[in-house]
Amino acid sequence: MKRLARPSAVQRLVEKHRAAGRRVGLVPTMGALHEGHASLVRRARRECDVVVVSIFVNPTQFGPREDFSRYPRTLGNDLKLLRREGCDLVFAPSVRDMYPEGFGTMVVPGPLASELEGAHRPGHFAGVATVCVKLFTICKPHRAYFGAKDYQQALVVEQVAHHLNLDLRVVMCPTRRDLDGLALSSRNRFLSAAEREVALALPRAIREAARVLRSGRATPRAAQRRGRAALSRVKGLVPDYFEVRQADTLLPCSPKDRRVVILAAARVGKTRLIDNLRVFLN
Amino acid sequence: MKRLARPSAVQRLVEKHRAAGRRVGLVPTMGALHEGHASLVRRARRECDVVVVSIFVNPTQFGPREDFSRYPRTLGNDLKLLRREGCDLVFAPSVRDMYPEGFGTMVVPGPLASELEGAHRPGHFAGVATVCVKLFTICKPHRAYFGAKDYQQALVVEQVAHHLNLDLRVVMCPTRRDLDGLALSSRNRFLSAAEREVALALPRAIREAARVLRSGRATPRAAQRRGRAALSRVKGLVPDYFEVRQADTLLPCSPKDRRVVILAAARVGKTRLIDNLRVFLN
Repeated sequence: MKRLARPSAVQRLVEKHRAAGRRVGLVPTMGALHEGHASLVRRARRECDVVVVSIFVNPTQFGPREDFSRYPRTLGNDLKLLRREGCDLVFAPSVRDMYPEGFGTMVVPGPLASELEGAHRPGHFAGVATVCVKLFTICKPHRAYFGAKDYQQALVVEQVAHHLNLDLRVVMCPTRRDLDGLALSSRNRFLSAAEREVALALPRAIREAARVLRSGRATPRAAQRRGRAALSRVKGLVPDYFEVRQADTLLPCSPKDRRVVILAAARVGKTRLIDNLRVFLN
Repeated sequence: MKRLARPSAVQRLVEKHRAAGRRVGLVPTMGALHEGHASLVRRARRECDVVVVSIFVNPTQFGPREDFSRYPRTLGNDLKLLRREGCDLVFAPSVRDMYPEGFGTMVVPGPLASELEGAHRPGHFAGVATVCVKLFTICKPHRAYFGAKDYQQALVVEQVAHHLNLDLRVVMCPTRRDLDGLALSSRNRFLSAAEREVALALPRAIREAARVLRSGRATPRAAQRRGRAALSRVKGLVPDYFEVRQADTLLPCSPKDRRVVILAAARVGKTRLIDNLRVFLN
């Protein structure tokens, strides 16, 4: 397993792979890898000839009062996991490698990025879009793998890639969960045992909303109301939003929409968690 | 000479060229081609194996009160010129090919784009940056050729390409001029004979400023003052700016700067003209 930090070195290498007709898969990560990331790497391993994993805690997607500096960094463990999963190339640049002195260009996504996470984290998706475009132009993948846990992010990145004619496919892979139902996230390690119990209200409220939607006993709007009410009753949890939206556009949905997604975000102690579930009704 | 309109068709073709080890050169144009464009194509022809010329009048770089709809469109003549110059592939998309329904992503350049043209044409360089990134990801050139007549544009595009790790070199080529000294521009055809006489004041003021700078008799600031005064005396010409700036950053220059550029913009009748000259002092 090769490890590179310089964008130009990665470009030289992947250009050779592409010229030789090899399919390149990229798994962009911020490190602190867990089984969710591992499942993305395995999918890339199955579908591509060359698997590239980037590890970069991207400062431009964190707000000034967010957790950039305390975001977990576990490079030693990450490399061990990636070696085990058969990753070919780790791209682990420094902030200076990615954002040289005087950096200013930003990729600003459309209205899809102003909703939900975008409304609660101003500038977040411009940071995500900018770093993803850079990772795509550096690693030149045929496919890029994103987890459905960050559902809006995957949609935004797919749209940006499409709008900017990036010659690749964005592949969204299923959310991985712990046995208790909590979606895997690098931030889960910040939760105390008691906070973790509280956090479980998030997937529980989402599952419950999915159940009433599927049963046909509630409209999207009613399911949304119930979810909000459920979260508001949980002590120690501060909800940011609980929404039932159209699965493909994230627009508010009407009673006749069949492909919907339930998305929620909440803070537990100092930790902000998000989760979602797609529901296909018939 | 092949002609394509669909971005994905161009990508398929240039990928084959790249995989075969051929160097791809791109000359992005808005059509209405003249000898300035021809000189870019010849340079690309000398330096690359495959020469791609894009023809696209890009709506996102025109302001609401600018000349998008009356910008000259001369596709028949353009194709004739390109065939003569040995162009291999013409990429001539429609607006819908480039900006499908719901398009929203913009590439927003840094502070370099807020000065001069950027100050007089709000949003102009975001439109330029967005379309250039798209042309680069579609045509995947090793080199892209721009005329020095649009000096700030070439600098902005080079910076954006660098910031977004686009794996190509931006090549700036000398401004071509008519015998009377007017820089070639697709917009010159809008000038009446009388307006053209008036317009010549622009290159004349720039040459005069360059002369006094080179002679050492004037500081950048004094040369700038003289240029502004000269333009303000010309009847029928409305100056937008006349500036002496650092050649590489476009920042205001101090008396000790050796690499400077004189940039000017003015309106003559309904036509807006720009021109510039780099001056290396010793």
